[in-house]
Amino acid sequence: MNATSKDRILIIGAGAIGSFYGAALQAGGAEVSAVCRSDYDAVRRDGVIVESERLGERHFLPAQTLRAPGDYQGGPPDYLVLSVKVIEGVDRAALIRDAVGPQTAIVLIENGVEIEEEIAQAFPDNELISALAFVQVSRVAPGRVRHFAFGELMFGNYPSGLSERSRRFAALLEAGGIKARTSDAVVTARWQKCVWNAAFNPISVLGGVLDTGHILGAEGGTGFVRKVMEEICAIAAAAGHPQQQGLIDQYLENTAKAPPYKTSMALDFEHGRPMETEVILGNAVRAGRREGVHAPSLETMYALMKMVERKTGH
Amino acid sequence: MNATSKDRILIIGAGAIGSFYGAALQAGGAEVSAVCRSDYDAVRRDGVIVESERLGERHFLPAQTLRAPGDYQGGPPDYLVLSVKVIEGVDRAALIRDAVGPQTAIVLIENGVEIEEEIAQAFPDNELISALAFVQVSRVAPGRVRHFAFGELMFGNYPSGLSERSRRFAALLEAGGIKARTSDAVVTARWQKCVWNAAFNPISVLGGVLDTGHILGAEGGTGFVRKVMEEICAIAAAAGHPQQQGLIDQYLENTAKAPPYKTSMALDFEHGRPMETEVILGNAVRAGRREGVHAPSLETMYALMKMVERKTGH
Repeated sequence: MNATSKDRILIIGAGAIGSFYGAALQAGGAEVSAVCRSDYDAVRRDGVIVESERLGERHFLPAQTLRAPGDYQGGPPDYLVLSVKVIEGVDRAALIRDAVGPQTAIVLIENGVEIEEEIAQAFPDNELISALAFVQVSRVAPGRVRHFAFGELMFGNYPSGLSERSRRFAALLEAGGIKARTSDAVVTARWQKCVWNAAFNPISVLGGVLDTGHILGAEGGTGFVRKVMEEICAIAAAAGHPQQQGLIDQYLENTAKAPPYKTSMALDFEHGRPMETEVILGNAVRAGRREGVHAPSLETMYALMKMVERKTGH
Repeated sequence: MNATSKDRILIIGAGAIGSFYGAALQAGGAEVSAVCRSDYDAVRRDGVIVESERLGERHFLPAQTLRAPGDYQGGPPDYLVLSVKVIEGVDRAALIRDAVGPQTAIVLIENGVEIEEEIAQAFPDNELISALAFVQVSRVAPGRVRHFAFGELMFGNYPSGLSERSRRFAALLEAGGIKARTSDAVVTARWQKCVWNAAFNPISVLGGVLDTGHILGAEGGTGFVRKVMEEICAIAAAAGHPQQQGLIDQYLENTAKAPPYKTSMALDFEHGRPMETEVILGNAVRAGRREGVHAPSLETMYALMKMVERKTGH
């Protein structure tokens, strides 16, 4: 890429998250293409409409709409953004291999912890950018995505640092109206989000599709959430990512103050979709086992979640 | 009571369990009366039909059908059987006080552990018989109860021992076709049942209304059930009721061999009825806290169950 040509970005998984950031990157001046699974025909024909109160209605029209990464034309992309949900049985390295060139920076937009190593090992010579989306966004119809709240993308290089490519990616997002929060310690930041996610997500499902208000308001609810969060903090610290003092208090306070809402796992459960149990909870549990950290509340919820998944067929 | 007069028994709570054993005691030769809450009119008029493949159809026609214990005629009963479900907010001592005379033996047919002390303290001079029903029975309509399986009543005196009155009660049941298993260590036996119940019941609800097959068949399921059972055994031992070696193996093996079935709590949950969370799980958790036994899986499930109850309004 030279200074005058556009950054070429290929998004794999143009669902709600992929389309939302794809639209922003396009608005920010990049040439954005997309690999679609289910909505290929609609996106190919009309692109994706992203409706947002805050950002207005955006029309994401991919430069190339593709069925498979190998169909991408014009040489490897500068950035390959992987924004498919991480569920069991998906070989993410195989999914992107056909479109990764020597200079391609791989951007993972994914929930959970410890999701990078598999990709880092498969593509040891590529720059790897690990990103966490703080956004509430839903695909409401084929080729139609609704943005409800937030939007920030937090990212940095894996395992640490912040490259020129990362800064450039941030500039494109910011130019597209999206807050880009870069971090040179992205794994620590992932663990920080995990402290909230690995507590509230499984609790919200196991408690019977609860919103945050129900969880904190139940008898012993806040104390239980605190205990779970303490377990996650202990695992994070043992894994080399100690969290700042007061994080749990701050999370509990902010969550109690915010309007009650349902977690992504509760929404997935409610709509019969696969849940991100493994990346959000399972990876934290496995990190705890590996580091020798006793995490009985997490272990209990993980065992129960595997039963829920088995029951619901995911 | 003299040798020729009938034993006078008053059953408080003529639901499925009360009617089932009431019919048996009546068939065994006792004069059985009943206090009914919801089905008073139907029972007063026609009694209760107990349909059972094994025992045939029985007609339980109470000697007296009453709205309240205080209405019982002819002096206090020889036995007062309390067979209401123990849920939060029910003052059991107040419920039976009006019908308890100095010579009345109080029989508690209830699930759970540590359910006797409240009654023992309220009626320190009365004989207290603690009973556990191993029976699958349902009220299918007003005045109509269906018996599906099992039927055994296990009981003994609280806190321990086996009195003449207990033996007599057993004889009446046996004469009515019911297996009566007496124990001079009934509290230990209650803990034994709790090892199964406090594991499978909450798991079955939290896992999304699972039967025993789903629970044991899930990834890590059997290991998780074992861990929960080990916690209960540790609490029981600390409370002075150590369980025999091999109990957990035996439970796991028998449950895996039996046809899959849903626990009582899962059925209650499914039908929107109050669940016996407190007596089955909460009392075990509280005993653990009192005895200083670490029981994190039970604590986790208890916290989650309180959220489920809050959500379902019970």
